[in-house]
Amino acid sequence: MRMVDLIEKKREGKELTTEEIQFIINGYTDGTIPDYQVSALTMAIFFKDMSERERADLTMAMVESGDQIDLSAIEGIKVDKHSTGGVGDTTTLVLGPLVASVGVPVAKMSGRGLGHTGGTIDKLEAVEGFHVEIENDEFIRLVNKNKLAVIGQSGNLTPADKKLYSLRDVTATVNSIPLIASSIMSKKIAAGADAIVLDVKTGAGAFMKTLQDSENLAKAMVNIGNNVGRKTMAVISDMSQPLGFAIGNALEVKEAIDTLKGEGPDDLTELCLTLGSHMVFLAEKASSLKEARELLKKAIEDGSALESFKVFLESQGGDASVVDDPSRLPQAQFKVELQAKEDGFVSEIIADSVGTAAMWLGAGRATKDSVIDLAVGLELRKKIGDEVKAGESLVTIYSNQEDIEDVKNKLYESIKVSSEKVEAPTLIHTEITD
Amino acid sequence: MRMVDLIEKKREGKELTTEEIQFIINGYTDGTIPDYQVSALTMAIFFKDMSERERADLTMAMVESGDQIDLSAIEGIKVDKHSTGGVGDTTTLVLGPLVASVGVPVAKMSGRGLGHTGGTIDKLEAVEGFHVEIENDEFIRLVNKNKLAVIGQSGNLTPADKKLYSLRDVTATVNSIPLIASSIMSKKIAAGADAIVLDVKTGAGAFMKTLQDSENLAKAMVNIGNNVGRKTMAVISDMSQPLGFAIGNALEVKEAIDTLKGEGPDDLTELCLTLGSHMVFLAEKASSLKEARELLKKAIEDGSALESFKVFLESQGGDASVVDDPSRLPQAQFKVELQAKEDGFVSEIIADSVGTAAMWLGAGRATKDSVIDLAVGLELRKKIGDEVKAGESLVTIYSNQEDIEDVKNKLYESIKVSSEKVEAPTLIHTEITD
Repeated sequence: MRMVDLIEKKREGKELTTEEIQFIINGYTDGTIPDYQVSALTMAIFFKDMSERERADLTMAMVESGDQIDLSAIEGIKVDKHSTGGVGDTTTLVLGPLVASVGVPVAKMSGRGLGHTGGTIDKLEAVEGFHVEIENDEFIRLVNKNKLAVIGQSGNLTPADKKLYSLRDVTATVNSIPLIASSIMSKKIAAGADAIVLDVKTGAGAFMKTLQDSENLAKAMVNIGNNVGRKTMAVISDMSQPLGFAIGNALEVKEAIDTLKGEGPDDLTELCLTLGSHMVFLAEKASSLKEARELLKKAIEDGSALESFKVFLESQGGDASVVDDPSRLPQAQFKVELQAKEDGFVSEIIADSVGTAAMWLGAGRATKDSVIDLAVGLELRKKIGDEVKAGESLVTIYSNQEDIEDVKNKLYESIKVSSEKVEAPTLIHTEITD
Repeated sequence: MRMVDLIEKKREGKELTTEEIQFIINGYTDGTIPDYQVSALTMAIFFKDMSERERADLTMAMVESGDQIDLSAIEGIKVDKHSTGGVGDTTTLVLGPLVASVGVPVAKMSGRGLGHTGGTIDKLEAVEGFHVEIENDEFIRLVNKNKLAVIGQSGNLTPADKKLYSLRDVTATVNSIPLIASSIMSKKIAAGADAIVLDVKTGAGAFMKTLQDSENLAKAMVNIGNNVGRKTMAVISDMSQPLGFAIGNALEVKEAIDTLKGEGPDDLTELCLTLGSHMVFLAEKASSLKEARELLKKAIEDGSALESFKVFLESQGGDASVVDDPSRLPQAQFKVELQAKEDGFVSEIIADSVGTAAMWLGAGRATKDSVIDLAVGLELRKKIGDEVKAGESLVTIYSNQEDIEDVKNKLYESIKVSSEKVEAPTLIHTEITD
């Protein structure tokens, strides 16, 4: 088998066989196939796409390129959730304890990452003492006992995907549905998921800007999952504005606590109930989505969701008293209101650029070596469709620096107020199950 | 400027600017842009093409990536001829002395190369004593004196093209019109041509199998030439069967001598007169194509074309007596006739596979280190459309090995005889001047 022939085959729009895809991924992983051939192939894939079968084969070849986490010692169906990313997305913090409280095992492997705010681990570290440096045995024990634990990413997971992603990043082939879908799915599968709930964001603040593109990506991932024996479904949710109110690490922990108490923002609560119901249903802890939703609502009402969060924090060394007293979370020195300049209706909140403002405050990492300030961030006081009077607060800014003129200007640029009434955007566009 | 942005720009089908193309070619030549980005770009070009302006810019960027031959010390307009390659193509050997004899300066830089037979230099070395190891000064002096000299390829010509071609070869991006056209044209221009006549072959034995593809390539090259100030035209000629009769080094020298005497094969003679007329016209040695053709026919009739060949061979150390006595050329030990098995009409002569048979005899190089046997080769006795009787010779095989069963079988496979009358293929399909 010669790589050049396989590139030509794909260039001509033909299907690569399972063996051919394995040959490519194995050869790329062990270095016998060079970058310059793989980048030509990925560009050909960009133009000629891959069939459902090819996508599944590519995913499994990447899964098999490295370690695979064995979660078989955990009782029950392990359902993982993945979001394609957005601004102010606190769902992971809420969903873990929420579904764990109704018996769904959540064995979360998480990262830090670059972005507007920290990753899930950074956010949880806003709780004093909390840490993810636990042994695998302890991780498994905690999930079996509490139904929820979080561990840092470890091991040599999907090295082929890592290599391929770095290459795509510098050869303008990131934006290809089969390659994005197989990259995401390979990581979830290697991390041991039995079933997967995908939260595919759509809109200006998402990677996929249009509903059509988001649906295509969602379908691609759902197909891959189901084709390789992992029950998978996707929810397409709105990211035309940030989700919830909080953008920042400690602020999002507080927002998660509020939501687990039943006092969170409407959109965040609704999205968590929707995603959570699918997780509970796929984990076979309810026989219908309706029943699953009832279970979750009850867990919020009777306090068991909140209790699950406390137990989880304590089990990993965290100070669980923050749940009852969020003022124990890191607090910023300055709290400034961004006042509306005119009367009207909020018509646009550019999520990306609100996220950038939060990063400027120190809430996220611009480079690998940046140090995150867990206390700082933003709290939206208005969302799209809300009426606003001149002088009212649009955003509360939590800062540890006094001079935040640039942040304020950025926010004024990001939040548009219109004189005409504006509809709030639809939160959940569609659900894709096969 | 970032290469990844330029790849994306081309991927989206947008035009790259002159500066962007120079940035890419300069960066690739000096190694600051890696292979894996260039191969992604060439694959994007394969799918999205390049505009006329981009093609011209790419060509000139490659020309400027290395040395450029300065032929300004040679009087007159230097017209170069380039053929896209085929089997048994003796035109270069004929055209040099033919157009030189009417005053067109031919300063030929030539190579050896891989293929069914040797390159022009190998063929000329069938003449005892002939050599191309001459100094540049001597080369210029000879062209000014005799209007014809041949020198081996030297210097660092179009390094960007060499690097790009090697990369395309292993990334399935050879077959792209803008890349083929700029590669060929950059080499001709760097070698100092003022004007260029292209012989673009079409048909089963050519790189371009269909007339449409051949025309597209011809137009692309003619456009580039004219856009960068080199008068360029192309003839599309038939390569559905080998050109002329001879395939082999000494055999082609003999065929060239016959043709210069006016006794060559009809197709080879006609193609040489056509290409030659355009060369004479572009060199401004005739005011019309008709006048140019008359000059050339006269040069054949009055012996001046043949005389020009003699002087050329002698000036570079060759034994010019071969012109009057071709038996002084290397002779093969065995001469075997391939007899027709049945009556009928020759309907097909698969050029590629006839060429392979010649290579098996030793006429060409399979690898860089192969040693060519200058004496061996094939002489076609019949061409497409010819009537043939069982037992008549189809091909004379000149061999230095006794066992040539494989060669004979290959030739029987290559030459089809039909019971129905067959038309001879059109030799010259079209001419493209702008």
